[in-house]
Amino acid sequence: MSKEGVVEIRVRYADTDQMGVVYYANYFVWLEVARGEFFRIKGIQYKDLETEKGISLPVIEAFCKYKSPARYDDVVMIKTRACAVKNTGLRFDYELIDKKSSQLLATAYTTHVFIDKERHPVRIPDEIKALF
Amino acid sequence: MSKEGVVEIRVRYADTDQMGVVYYANYFVWLEVARGEFFRIKGIQYKDLETEKGISLPVIEAFCKYKSPARYDDVVMIKTRACAVKNTGLRFDYELIDKKSSQLLATAYTTHVFIDKERHPVRIPDEIKALF
Amino acid sequence: MSKEGVVEIRVRYADTDQMGVVYYANYFVWLEVARGEFFRIKGIQYKDLETEKGISLPVIEAFCKYKSPARYDDVVMIKTRACAVKNTGLRFDYELIDKKSSQLLATAYTTHVFIDKERHPVRIPDEIKALF
Amino acid sequence: MSKEGVVEIRVRYADTDQMGVVYYANYFVWLEVARGEFFRIKGIQYKDLETEKGISLPVIEAFCKYKSPARYDDVVMIKTRACAVKNTGLRFDYELIDKKSSQLLATAYTTHVFIDKERHPVRIPDEIKALF
Repeated sequence: MSKEGVVEIRVRYADTDQMGVVYYANYFVWLEVARGEFFRIKGIQYKDLETEKGISLPVIEAFCKYKSPARYDDVVMIKTRACAVKNTGLRFDYELIDKKSSQLLATAYTTHVFIDKERHPVRIPDEIKALF
Repeated sequence: MSKEGVVEIRVRYADTDQMGVVYYANYFVWLEVARGEFFRIKGIQYKDLETEKGISLPVIEAFCKYKSPARYDDVVMIKTRACAVKNTGLRFDYELIDKKSSQLLATAYTTHVFIDKERHPVRIPDEIKALF
Repeated sequence: MSKEGVVEIRVRYADTDQMGVVYYANYFVWLEVARGEFFRIKGIQYKDLETEKGISLPVIEAFCKYKSPARYDDVVMIKTRACAVKNTGLRFDYELIDKKSSQLLATAYTTHVFIDKERHPVRIPDEIKALF
Repeated sequence: MSKEGVVEIRVRYADTDQMGVVYYANYFVWLEVARGEFFRIKGIQYKDLETEKGISLPVIEAFCKYKSPARYDDVVMIKTRACAVKNTGLRFDYELIDKKSSQLLATAYTTHVFIDKERHPVRIPDEIKALF
């Protein structure tokens, strides 16, 4: 099974700042949407992990390299790949691309660990592991 | 005891949008800060209500009238008054003022009900009621 | 031509707060998305108004009545109607509905005036006026 | 002159997510506040750079390593250091510490270039250079 997902996000007015471009922290919100869609495409609802299994996937590290600014009303395409990290974590790599111009806007990654409700690390759930 | 509280908030770059002024939804975040400080000034930590008593105070209605835009790095003074509404709710009224120019930026109100962890309405806690 | 628009928004993790539901200020961001789509459906790009005509449509008043909480991963349907207010303004009325259950989550309105780059009120642009 | 700045930020309800801790993207908003205060302590208003000189300092890279979660109403202390990068850029390094427990919550860095209104890189302004 492919380890890639793609999602499109239209830039909201709320995303912009007075420089006339998207405020840098908001890219990380988009990455969260991209991760959620990555799971959805694979048939997994991240929500169910939390509500049914009591397992969450908080971010341990987040990085973004900004190459070209995104602007209001642009459609940003996010390509997401994921790989397992040891037995308890995941790493996502992202490419953010302007849909209209195909220009690369940013690259990013996030690393995560699975934790239970007491915030203790747990092994990667089997249905997630099966994706890799 | 006075039913007023005052808090000062410096406008963040993140608060602005491409119009060069504060994005309208962000005023409501400031109102939350103002409510929290209103309680703190009276000796009540809103956090303790939630963690110790399992009681929350969600917003039922929110309104803001925007008169003059706030800009990056401005200091906004928020004057907050509160009154009880029946036995289960509160209403807060706010004035947002530019500290430097004393200009009125906005007026706003929010109404709230106290609820328990099952989201059922509960009576106003005694220590809150004592404020009015 | 119909004066209604509909848009669907999936709740992001970023939208939630520690009460486990969507934070109240974030509804107003959704209303902005709904307004943008309202215009798009009518063949108008709000972005073009700003960049080509130098006209903006800031919010003068915003109100939301919260009836039932939205939660992570829910799809919220927003029905938007608009009407002209005098010669310089618009009013939008919104219904926010949970797509799955058809439950009414919130009702809201926002009022706006058209302004030029010096923030002076201007008459409603003809292509907008033609919508009503 | 010291190259360090310290700022304190109280966690807002809006900062939290349904995991009961601060949402990861919001740390980057705090870093912006820390940078602004870093300049202010040195006698420079970042706002004046933009409005008087037409110079901005967008983020080129942003990284955060999350060690321990911040929670609602916590006071987060951010220690900020900065250094010049070549002739056109700055790098900020941050330590985020829980004020009450002195626990390290996160470390982070951001890199920036100075640009003019056409988004072309420009040399570090003299009054900034004098800080290093």
